[in-house]
Amino acid sequence: MKRISEYAAEVESAIRDLKIEDRKPESLYAPIVYAMEAGGKRLRPALTLMAAEAFGVPVEKSMPAALAMEFFHNFTLLHDDVMDDSAMRRNRESVYKKFGKDAAILSGDTMEGIAQELLLSVDNPNLIAALNVYNRMAREVYEGQALDMEFENRSDVSPAEYLEMVRLKTGALLGACAEIGGILAGVDKKVLKGLRQYGENLGIAFQIEDDWLDTFGDAATFGKPIGGDINNGKKTFLLVSALSSGSQDAKALEVAMGLEAGEMRVKTVTRIYEKMEIGALARKEAERFSTKAMHSIKSTGLDEEHLENFKYLLDRLAGRRK
Amino acid sequence: MKRISEYAAEVESAIRDLKIEDRKPESLYAPIVYAMEAGGKRLRPALTLMAAEAFGVPVEKSMPAALAMEFFHNFTLLHDDVMDDSAMRRNRESVYKKFGKDAAILSGDTMEGIAQELLLSVDNPNLIAALNVYNRMAREVYEGQALDMEFENRSDVSPAEYLEMVRLKTGALLGACAEIGGILAGVDKKVLKGLRQYGENLGIAFQIEDDWLDTFGDAATFGKPIGGDINNGKKTFLLVSALSSGSQDAKALEVAMGLEAGEMRVKTVTRIYEKMEIGALARKEAERFSTKAMHSIKSTGLDEEHLENFKYLLDRLAGRRK
Repeated sequence: MKRISEYAAEVESAIRDLKIEDRKPESLYAPIVYAMEAGGKRLRPALTLMAAEAFGVPVEKSMPAALAMEFFHNFTLLHDDVMDDSAMRRNRESVYKKFGKDAAILSGDTMEGIAQELLLSVDNPNLIAALNVYNRMAREVYEGQALDMEFENRSDVSPAEYLEMVRLKTGALLGACAEIGGILAGVDKKVLKGLRQYGENLGIAFQIEDDWLDTFGDAATFGKPIGGDINNGKKTFLLVSALSSGSQDAKALEVAMGLEAGEMRVKTVTRIYEKMEIGALARKEAERFSTKAMHSIKSTGLDEEHLENFKYLLDRLAGRRK
Repeated sequence: MKRISEYAAEVESAIRDLKIEDRKPESLYAPIVYAMEAGGKRLRPALTLMAAEAFGVPVEKSMPAALAMEFFHNFTLLHDDVMDDSAMRRNRESVYKKFGKDAAILSGDTMEGIAQELLLSVDNPNLIAALNVYNRMAREVYEGQALDMEFENRSDVSPAEYLEMVRLKTGALLGACAEIGGILAGVDKKVLKGLRQYGENLGIAFQIEDDWLDTFGDAATFGKPIGGDINNGKKTFLLVSALSSGSQDAKALEVAMGLEAGEMRVKTVTRIYEKMEIGALARKEAERFSTKAMHSIKSTGLDEEHLENFKYLLDRLAGRRK
């Protein structure tokens, strides 16, 4: 059985084989080449390949579907960076910053189109089912992003609302990555459900971890400046959990979040989080969803050897602080 | 045989039946409702219904595909308005102006997703072929939009380059609207080619007409302020034709296009166009493509009665000044 890193390396090579850099006009495709060569861990497409192969589909048969998921993911990053006004991504300038707003929008649209074309090129009797899952996923991701933006103007977001937003915004894609692998293998509904729920719970655990890293992580390994969420007033797991406690500290936190964006605000908010032990709470919640993900994947009936890979992926994505 | 206005009315009613306004979150779907209720002529989806019915597919069978084309079209308007910084669309505020940049981007993405879901819901043995045509079309539209933006920073765009840009940006969608109608009817390749080329040439004629209206039209019927293209430095058919003449007037035009954006620039440029008789040249070129469109549709072997409808559509889209 292959390791995740081997699947990821095959994805990397398949992306290069697409030779996007040969397409014209250059103003449209250069930002796409830039975005796709930035790397990232390729864990989403690796998940599709891994799920498909675990149920008997060789990598070369599921690769276009896996690439579709990676293009979709990167497309959302291009548009998110415009919406969030983010200048940095993966330790270098975002497409938005380097090529401008218009390029980030239009090249993003094109990446989503490439994803659709890749998925459509899969030679498989269950292609229509895979397309349906992809399109439902896309809708959920947009709905999640819309909720995330709505939350920025609300101060009463509950942890439950936050978790549903994250299930849509981050969980849906990982769920679809696993499910589409299973669809290509023609597995039954119960197995598909287990695959999807593994991915969804993995995504939720990953996002809570990401929220933690944005405040408590290390800028170099995280790839973005620490404290961005605090300065942007983002409703992270940390913030909604702390605010929903209704305690004296929550009131102090509300005041601190009203400070001018900058080092002072980051420091003050971080100190209140530490006093409230919100970091530990986040760790516990991420572990709860990791455990749910493992239960889900076990329900598919895969053997121990395959389960090991799914567990490893969970550690890579949702256990980055270890 | 139905008239175009009847097809358009059926599209209008089918859009209402989707009940987009019931979807959540509201921040995502309200801009879509706003964009889709703005009307427009619904001529693109009407073309799909008309092409399908001309070859034997009843309206109710091709409606989801027709709606997909209308959602795709409106999605591109949302993103174009962000890229062009356009505050007005169809005589009222653009989604970009009314709901903001982020909503225009994300609700636009969602409209493209709805288009994909609608097309995928079509119950037809040639669905995969229709999806392929849709996705190729989307790529061509993005490439055309990228060229259009590239042209803004170039002063040496030739009329041939302009026409290829317009074929991609405007012709590809109308071509796909007609072709997908034929695909659902299962017609042969030669007929598909005739349908697609009808739409493409119709689109080119339409865009040249649109360029003419932006300078010489009437603001009230055009739906946008007159002179926008001149103030934005857009490489329209008028401008590239005039500049490529290399005459003394072309040099004066270059100077006039360097004036500060405003009424003076619009007036001066318009006067030079009038002196060069560029308006008449544009009219001739639009008619050339209208004629090509009629040749293409005749090659499909449709009878006179059906041809009449295709001719009427051409007059509606490419003969708006009459």
